[in-house]
Amino acid sequence: MIKIDILIIGAGPTGLFTVFEAGLLKLKCHLIDALPQPGGQCSEIYPKKPIYDIPAFPEILAGDLVDNLMEQIKPFEPGFTLGERAETLDKQEDGSYIVSTNKGTQHQAPVVVIAGGLGSFEPRKPPIDNIIEFEDKGVAYMVKDPEVYRDKKVVIAGGGDSALDWAIFLTNVASEVSLVHRRNEFRGALDSVEKASELAKLGKIKLFTEAQVKKLYGDEKLEAVVIKHNDPDKGETYLEVDNFIPLFGLSPKLGPLGNWGLEIQKNAIKVNNAKDYQTNIPGVFAIGDVNTYEGKLKLILSGFHEAAVMCQYAYQIIHPNKRFVMKYTTVGGVEGFDGSKKEAKKEVVQSIV
Amino acid sequence: MIKIDILIIGAGPTGLFTVFEAGLLKLKCHLIDALPQPGGQCSEIYPKKPIYDIPAFPEILAGDLVDNLMEQIKPFEPGFTLGERAETLDKQEDGSYIVSTNKGTQHQAPVVVIAGGLGSFEPRKPPIDNIIEFEDKGVAYMVKDPEVYRDKKVVIAGGGDSALDWAIFLTNVASEVSLVHRRNEFRGALDSVEKASELAKLGKIKLFTEAQVKKLYGDEKLEAVVIKHNDPDKGETYLEVDNFIPLFGLSPKLGPLGNWGLEIQKNAIKVNNAKDYQTNIPGVFAIGDVNTYEGKLKLILSGFHEAAVMCQYAYQIIHPNKRFVMKYTTVGGVEGFDGSKKEAKKEVVQSIV
Repeated sequence: MIKIDILIIGAGPTGLFTVFEAGLLKLKCHLIDALPQPGGQCSEIYPKKPIYDIPAFPEILAGDLVDNLMEQIKPFEPGFTLGERAETLDKQEDGSYIVSTNKGTQHQAPVVVIAGGLGSFEPRKPPIDNIIEFEDKGVAYMVKDPEVYRDKKVVIAGGGDSALDWAIFLTNVASEVSLVHRRNEFRGALDSVEKASELAKLGKIKLFTEAQVKKLYGDEKLEAVVIKHNDPDKGETYLEVDNFIPLFGLSPKLGPLGNWGLEIQKNAIKVNNAKDYQTNIPGVFAIGDVNTYEGKLKLILSGFHEAAVMCQYAYQIIHPNKRFVMKYTTVGGVEGFDGSKKEAKKEVVQSIV
Repeated sequence: MIKIDILIIGAGPTGLFTVFEAGLLKLKCHLIDALPQPGGQCSEIYPKKPIYDIPAFPEILAGDLVDNLMEQIKPFEPGFTLGERAETLDKQEDGSYIVSTNKGTQHQAPVVVIAGGLGSFEPRKPPIDNIIEFEDKGVAYMVKDPEVYRDKKVVIAGGGDSALDWAIFLTNVASEVSLVHRRNEFRGALDSVEKASELAKLGKIKLFTEAQVKKLYGDEKLEAVVIKHNDPDKGETYLEVDNFIPLFGLSPKLGPLGNWGLEIQKNAIKVNNAKDYQTNIPGVFAIGDVNTYEGKLKLILSGFHEAAVMCQYAYQIIHPNKRFVMKYTTVGGVEGFDGSKKEAKKEVVQSIV
């Protein structure tokens, strides 16, 4: 059981910045995210895209925004449960909550913050009848640990950056890499497209374009796939493989949170912005793109602000009898849980006569 | 008469960022500030102090924050009325407002945004009976344009960075520089203290410590000051001067805004955060440290968020019959009024076979 002051569901920019604001109040945080790395959409979907509306950054790449936030929160030593999805919320007698993931990891905290962005990003699954039977038995919708594919025969499906980049990467890990895409054109960064093309010419990537994986075979685990070509003359290709990784992007879904008894409005969690961004469940807050209220703007900036406000109220729940006096970081500095201390240099007082 | 979409009172970080959010909505802004440069407290009081709680900046100097914001808003070509204080607010028949400054500059806009920080920073004035008579006739509480002091005899009073830095700077401009401080110790950056000490030894700064300016003399304009020494044996020094610049820091005051009929609570302007940060006067908004509402946090971050929300409502006032569809900058880019355009590079679509 992971016990913590504030449990944050969602490790996107809003969730990450919550660790900083909580840290200033000496509250410790732990984050759960279904994706295998922190940063949410910024890391997973558009790390190389510039963002222009973060205050005081005329331009910043989404990936750099995440890197900066990770550096900013480092002194507060956040914990992470990554690649797992928060599934259940159970209220305890002492008023705290236990949140369990789809992998059974349990977390207990007096305050739960849902910073889930557009919801958990569910991978888009290809329409193959028996694909669910092979999940975690050879089929995966994201690459969490490339070592799993060491010396395996792997087939990747998809035509975007993820499919290209993992196909390229796994040529150095897997014994055989196939890439299946239903079109002839790939949508990806120029250098990824060129590199994949080169590897295909060298025979290091078996390329099947204008084709789709249509059937999966196997007994205990995946043993083979059938690739159907668009061109009827080409028919079908039977391919013995250990792993099938369809990378068709992510689709936002509120997911299991939808069953927690939260008041939902337009696929978002309703909060009262006049106060503290608390949901209808006491002690459970919702901040960032996942919440809604009158005049809500779905900006990263708004999530940052909501995090700062929400932490003040979380403090009152966690320490009901203590009063916290807010100090400006410019005056009081920042004290990390790791013993680090940042502060402005003191002024010099000196006689000049 | 300066006519504009949004008139912003206060050119601190919150006021500056408002230009950006308004610009995304194609609204043009003009800023008024009593200080001679943009940036508010960050530029005037602590430009070299690090701030730690701006999201995605593990550390940033206050002066750099202002520089970054100025760069970010540059495409939206804001206008500035600097070194003047907003004095009066007059509602026009068409619903717009005319705001006049203490120097008589007039501005007209349908939306007025008060981003006044802790209020206008009034200089702390020394307790000298007739000092007000000599204001703008030899007495000034801040240095707006050093050239005013070319070949003049200047006496500066104060013991902080401003007093030290201007005394040092003016040795190259004025014909005579005196520095009066009531203590022997100066509170300033080490290099400023050392430099002033050196100039005092060279006779380029006449130094009077443990002393205070107590009387002012002059007919049409300032002609002399009397410096009283703490040590009764030393008595008083009569000094012929053209200019007296007391630099005793700034003290926040709501100032003339206090007479605009705004609802005031705890020396701040009350707004309804459940909606749009509008004050009790329709079309007049208050954002940043100058406003108050339940749960208000006086963070620069909160001012940034309030600016973004407020601009959406300003748009509805300025264009009551148009609907604005918000586009993410990551998707739609940023189009400046100066013809500039920033946007993410389009993805590459290419065949690899």
